[in-house]
Amino acid sequence: MTPRLVGIGTHVPPRRDANLDRLDDFGLDEAFVVEKLGVRQRARKEDGEGVVDLCLKAVADMATRQALPLAQVELLCVVTQNPDRRIPHAAATLHDRLGLGGHCMTFDISQGCAGFTHGLEIVVAVMRQRGLHHALLLTGDPYSTIVDPADRNTALLFGDAATASYLCDEGPGWALRDTDAGTRPGTSACLQCDDHLRMDGRAVLMNAAHEVPASVERLLRRQGLARDDIDTFLFHPGSLRILELLRSTLNLDAARAPFDILDYGNTVSSSIPLMLSSRFAARPGAKRVLSGFGVGFSWATSLIESI
Amino acid sequence: MTPRLVGIGTHVPPRRDANLDRLDDFGLDEAFVVEKLGVRQRARKEDGEGVVDLCLKAVADMATRQALPLAQVELLCVVTQNPDRRIPHAAATLHDRLGLGGHCMTFDISQGCAGFTHGLEIVVAVMRQRGLHHALLLTGDPYSTIVDPADRNTALLFGDAATASYLCDEGPGWALRDTDAGTRPGTSACLQCDDHLRMDGRAVLMNAAHEVPASVERLLRRQGLARDDIDTFLFHPGSLRILELLRSTLNLDAARAPFDILDYGNTVSSSIPLMLSSRFAARPGAKRVLSGFGVGFSWATSLIESI
Repeated sequence: MTPRLVGIGTHVPPRRDANLDRLDDFGLDEAFVVEKLGVRQRARKEDGEGVVDLCLKAVADMATRQALPLAQVELLCVVTQNPDRRIPHAAATLHDRLGLGGHCMTFDISQGCAGFTHGLEIVVAVMRQRGLHHALLLTGDPYSTIVDPADRNTALLFGDAATASYLCDEGPGWALRDTDAGTRPGTSACLQCDDHLRMDGRAVLMNAAHEVPASVERLLRRQGLARDDIDTFLFHPGSLRILELLRSTLNLDAARAPFDILDYGNTVSSSIPLMLSSRFAARPGAKRVLSGFGVGFSWATSLIESI
Repeated sequence: MTPRLVGIGTHVPPRRDANLDRLDDFGLDEAFVVEKLGVRQRARKEDGEGVVDLCLKAVADMATRQALPLAQVELLCVVTQNPDRRIPHAAATLHDRLGLGGHCMTFDISQGCAGFTHGLEIVVAVMRQRGLHHALLLTGDPYSTIVDPADRNTALLFGDAATASYLCDEGPGWALRDTDAGTRPGTSACLQCDDHLRMDGRAVLMNAAHEVPASVERLLRRQGLARDDIDTFLFHPGSLRILELLRSTLNLDAARAPFDILDYGNTVSSSIPLMLSSRFAARPGAKRVLSGFGVGFSWATSLIESI
């Protein structure tokens, strides 16, 4: 059996916080937020909304795009590092709210900006091993709850969002072909959250520059593919500066390595499924590379193929 | 390739809190704690110790039991619902503290008393899919940090511990043959933690009575096995009362469905690996059933075979 991603629902809250209103607070200018961060405004959830609420909206959006047989879902996985509560896992609460059946396994994965590609690897592996036909992979990591608005390293970067990816074993979709994943030694403190998020932006940039192009090259080499065999590279849009560095290192133009987040921000584990959702259609046989990286510092780079 | 569990390291903190000292607080007698709960004293971590510290001790114990080639570990997964911090995942911090290599993927799983069997399913599936040779599956959920000592439903039940399971693709060990997993509809509130843990003990007992024997039967039927083909059933020791109910329903005696936690308590996701660790040796071909259940209310029941 070949599990494949057949549809992605998204929820980007309509509320926005404008970065231009904050320039004076940090002594920055418009060129910095537009050309370095690549974020003009940040999507922000309503006060009181949690991961479960955001994920429910993404699932509702998914159901408008593609028939979603909730009663048949056998695996529900939520990727988050900011769950509404410790216990139970968010997937159990969502199982309850969505009215899923008893045969549906539930668990959450704690992973950051590489969360979607880790989740894809894990969900597809379990579907194959257990012969599951229908699964939901949700992402939701509202950083507005952990970012200190006075912290210049993080205050202008992150947006809230959630996504709901539906995987099943028939119909047209994107099949996972291979994943390269790892964690850079000695880098676990580059993004940390006790009371609020602390980010060493320079370390994150250096870690990405060191690991992400190498991961892409390793994956392509192992699959006997050249960069030109890939129609689009969807890198986690950590910032426009990081993305431009990756484009330059791998000699990719903006069309093949897009950056879409100017009007909603870096949405952590939701960023890659958001980008994939808005360019989901492809000719059969088309190949794409998804590369998530960040918290850890860890990464997972996946090759997917349209079938 | 056939990934197998080749060794399990454990850490049960030496400090104990005695339940007999608390009987007057709750108007209980010794018969209740010994014959119903099945917990005389609870293991308790030192103040200031966290999940990462406990897991490091379990990994150190693992290394005394079996050669553990840390430099070759390609997957590190931590099962916890009480991480020391939100970001990064505990696996990233442990990756750093253990000095693991760049090729090692790291993520945490949020799952409760069924966490070990969920983790086993996930880790083995990813090892198979990616062809990984060496993996570590850690559990650590110190409930002493979330239990309200004045809450009669939870104060006398839980103990702190951590375990470290080493999986690789050669040598004698336990191979995973099949898993039955699910989540009971409408039950997500039976165990909840915002500020502290709240447990509806009666609901947990009813959920276990309804789901766990059925899960075991489903797994055995699918594998064409009878109960007598299984040498030992390692059920999560939620309480002695739950375990006796499962023994009685499935017609198993105490030797085949053991309950070991009288002197350290219910250690959540560490309970099953602790029990398996102390009876790890078996003749080749021996089959066991591991059944974790609780938070969710979810369960995962696994068939393992000695190879």
